[in-house]
Amino acid sequence: MKTPHIILGVDPGTQLLGYALLKIDNNKQQVLLMDVLKLSSHKDIYERLEKIHSKIVEIIKLYKPQTFAIEAPFFGKNVQSMLKLGRAQGVAIAAAIQSGLDVTEYSPKKVKQSITGNGNADKEQVWKMLQQILAIEEKPQYFDATDALAVALCHQYQISNSIFKMQKGFNGWEDFIKKNPEKLLKK
Amino acid sequence: MKTPHIILGVDPGTQLLGYALLKIDNNKQQVLLMDVLKLSSHKDIYERLEKIHSKIVEIIKLYKPQTFAIEAPFFGKNVQSMLKLGRAQGVAIAAAIQSGLDVTEYSPKKVKQSITGNGNADKEQVWKMLQQILAIEEKPQYFDATDALAVALCHQYQISNSIFKMQKGFNGWEDFIKKNPEKLLKK
Repeated sequence: MKTPHIILGVDPGTQLLGYALLKIDNNKQQVLLMDVLKLSSHKDIYERLEKIHSKIVEIIKLYKPQTFAIEAPFFGKNVQSMLKLGRAQGVAIAAAIQSGLDVTEYSPKKVKQSITGNGNADKEQVWKMLQQILAIEEKPQYFDATDALAVALCHQYQISNSIFKMQKGFNGWEDFIKKNPEKLLKK
Repeated sequence: MKTPHIILGVDPGTQLLGYALLKIDNNKQQVLLMDVLKLSSHKDIYERLEKIHSKIVEIIKLYKPQTFAIEAPFFGKNVQSMLKLGRAQGVAIAAAIQSGLDVTEYSPKKVKQSITGNGNADKEQVWKMLQQILAIEEKPQYFDATDALAVALCHQYQISNSIFKMQKGFNGWEDFIKKNPEKLLKK
């Protein structure tokens, strides 16, 4: 991951949509934004979808993130809520796609696991951990906003882990040849 | 509804997405397009969503429809399919919203009812009726395409009906005053 790199994290919902922007500059993490879009005042579902779409497009234009990480809805709700959540997620993803961002999705369990080490942690525990890691002072009004930040940080961890894993096995060609002399074509 | 008016009908799916364009010019109906977007070759779900989004945007740019009518998924599938369908529907709706089209949704029952008079008609019956009404000769390969045309025609019926209903009650101001003389402010 090239730095500075900005990750847009989204926790999609039909009443509240959480969003957060996390900037990574070398090893420094900075929360640029953490808020919710309130949708309940719009009765018309298409109006809600339009609000989600235009909000995401607006954030992308303003902050120019490179990556979009979204939390997958939790399975177990009924089919009707699942359809509504899928739509909300779909328009948010479409806004990211149309702006050329990479899209990644994480399950709620994966997000909790990567932030707290416990896939069954509650929202309060996730928030406390975020507060410590990112040195955030104010307490946001909605967990939808902190969940969005959690998915952004989870994405950063995933990326850093895969770079770290690559580096553990690979420390440059000289080292590689020293460890694998048989790979060198004899001249 | 001002004419000429073009309705884009969409039957969203995760394997196949049906789309059709119906042009209304006075009382003449013309099928401009009726086809499917095949998605099964794309394994990545975000790639599929991207394909749906760019296809809808492309059709809107080329044909400039004024209205977007979409078929609602049939409830009764499991939560996972509902989420997938919701997403597919969401990105299609987002593409329509971003182009400024009016979005309307119809249940599969409503579409069947308005085309055949029977809310439980099968896809073959709906197609036969469309073939007669719109004088279509070729048989399309997929019912997803004919279903998309059905939802476009269903939308036209809804609009025409509401105009007809309005006209039944309202035949101009002169007639209105004749029927409601007490509404006229005496000078």
